[in-house]
Amino acid sequence: MKKGCKFGTHRVIEPKGSLPQPAWKIDNDMEIYDNEILIDVQTLNIDSASFTQIKEEANGDVEKIKEIMLDIVSKRGKHHNPVTGSGGMLIGTVEKIGPALEGKTDLKVGDKIATLVSLSLTPLRIDKIKEVRKDIDQVDIEGKAILFESGIYAVLPDDIPENLALSVLDVAGAPAQTAKLVKPGNTVLVIGGAGKSGMLCLYEAKKRAGITGKVICLGHSEKSIEKAKKANLADVYIVADATKPVEVMEKVKEVTNGKMADITINCVNVPDTEMSSILATKDDGLIYFFSMATSFTKAALGAEGVGRDTTMIIGNGYTKGHAKIALEIMRESKALREIYEELYA
Amino acid sequence: MKKGCKFGTHRVIEPKGSLPQPAWKIDNDMEIYDNEILIDVQTLNIDSASFTQIKEEANGDVEKIKEIMLDIVSKRGKHHNPVTGSGGMLIGTVEKIGPALEGKTDLKVGDKIATLVSLSLTPLRIDKIKEVRKDIDQVDIEGKAILFESGIYAVLPDDIPENLALSVLDVAGAPAQTAKLVKPGNTVLVIGGAGKSGMLCLYEAKKRAGITGKVICLGHSEKSIEKAKKANLADVYIVADATKPVEVMEKVKEVTNGKMADITINCVNVPDTEMSSILATKDDGLIYFFSMATSFTKAALGAEGVGRDTTMIIGNGYTKGHAKIALEIMRESKALREIYEELYA
Repeated sequence: MKKGCKFGTHRVIEPKGSLPQPAWKIDNDMEIYDNEILIDVQTLNIDSASFTQIKEEANGDVEKIKEIMLDIVSKRGKHHNPVTGSGGMLIGTVEKIGPALEGKTDLKVGDKIATLVSLSLTPLRIDKIKEVRKDIDQVDIEGKAILFESGIYAVLPDDIPENLALSVLDVAGAPAQTAKLVKPGNTVLVIGGAGKSGMLCLYEAKKRAGITGKVICLGHSEKSIEKAKKANLADVYIVADATKPVEVMEKVKEVTNGKMADITINCVNVPDTEMSSILATKDDGLIYFFSMATSFTKAALGAEGVGRDTTMIIGNGYTKGHAKIALEIMRESKALREIYEELYA
Repeated sequence: MKKGCKFGTHRVIEPKGSLPQPAWKIDNDMEIYDNEILIDVQTLNIDSASFTQIKEEANGDVEKIKEIMLDIVSKRGKHHNPVTGSGGMLIGTVEKIGPALEGKTDLKVGDKIATLVSLSLTPLRIDKIKEVRKDIDQVDIEGKAILFESGIYAVLPDDIPENLALSVLDVAGAPAQTAKLVKPGNTVLVIGGAGKSGMLCLYEAKKRAGITGKVICLGHSEKSIEKAKKANLADVYIVADATKPVEVMEKVKEVTNGKMADITINCVNVPDTEMSSILATKDDGLIYFFSMATSFTKAALGAEGVGRDTTMIIGNGYTKGHAKIALEIMRESKALREIYEELYA
């Protein structure tokens, strides 16, 4: 049996010497190396920015969506959207565990897991696309995938249905980072607060900012924020177009008495919202970009361009305990669980 | 006289409602609005990532470089490289000050200034390109530019030659952010440490990390790090290809006894160095991406992909006092000033 690298570099076809995520193409042959885990895949949960792009390219046509997805995987050996650069995650059953992992992993054959590393680095073979659930970015397939030694995963909990757990785990980094960033008394703005990751961020922000803080939900329409309002996820609600920085700035100014946000969390899946995030935040505030549609240069040059000293963080999909923190929300909040079951599971 | 918006939105041609930096095209008519400053431009200092791209596209041919630059400005109304998304800065003389700025600015007509906002948002008209200084990314022109009310600038100091000041101010954000981040005892890795911004970062890192810290300079060749070595800018020097993450990780592991860097500052102007930065840094460490060639998704998904909890910061070209901090280095360090005079001025 072939010996593999911890990070999966042995699977990289091009360019050589890079890691599987930035690589253009990786090897998706399903014969495992000694430190790999083979997964029998059940469902792909495509990253929201990626799936939005694919749906648009396909004009919403399911057969065309399937075609685009199969094409991506056949060209790259992984579901790594070449337009958005993003992936997603999957659930499946452990089929084989490489012998080099013995004593190193607590997984066993037959465990149902969700991979918590991006599909953009996961060797994947799709044999058949069984069902496309367009509204929740989930796709049921027949196929196999590989988890590298450095790959993170969560064994699916018994008390939360699989599709629900998958939806929550897909965006687990955002609420967990929010939980770690927000301090009592903070004014927190969540742009895209009515979306899939946004609502979890609102929940954690409100919990941590507490009675002395102020949590602001920004959504693109009255209709979009209805559910967040009903579940009482924020203290204040704003309807604005996140791609219009001056509009956003004025509205945030109004609800904060001119003080602006201490922390802004950007969860929207459309481009060109960097400037709104910057103008809505205090000069010495912090912006956490979770959106995969964020442009590095637009953020960097945008802040400089308006002379703002704001700290801007690249949203890391992983932080310690993120799966636990995110899943726990589904146990704590009945209202949020109901919304998630209705919308994303 | 027409009234302008603080951020220059009145100049945006497309898309409407965006700010000048993310805008595709802005109005470079040189009749000023009431809150604008007209600058008679002397020299453009093109962002390193942008100029490298232009030189490559032109195969190093000066006439072709001129053509590409003129084409960018005629299409966009600003020197905003459509491939790299980055700009640069300029020096020139204040020619007119809008009446609405009276009492708000300490500038006067005739002041020689450097603009500290990116060329990617600065209305610019080039009448003639006089000289291209290929090796230092500087281009002398005849032309005019506009500084918006929110735009930052530095009046050029008397004791530092103009071209030298321009070179230093162009990258002022990097050493100033380094100065603010690095604490005594830190292990600091500067990737691209032998480059223009890298050397200033090394200097500040060494000053702040002090005798109990360790500052590591990573350069791409023995030759590239010679000058940094001679000026004693770092404690340790590594030669490695920053696009090869495993190679970089192994070498950093070796010089840190397996502990890796507390803070990594990425100053290289080539793509695909995100993973090297991540693998060279401690799990709970911090990465500061100053490189304009950084990909947001590669950084975000890269860290997640290897299960690293690292904090990753989008390099903000502006931070309070950055011009002062950067220029002061030229007064403090004779060795560094000599290098800068030789290479970049």
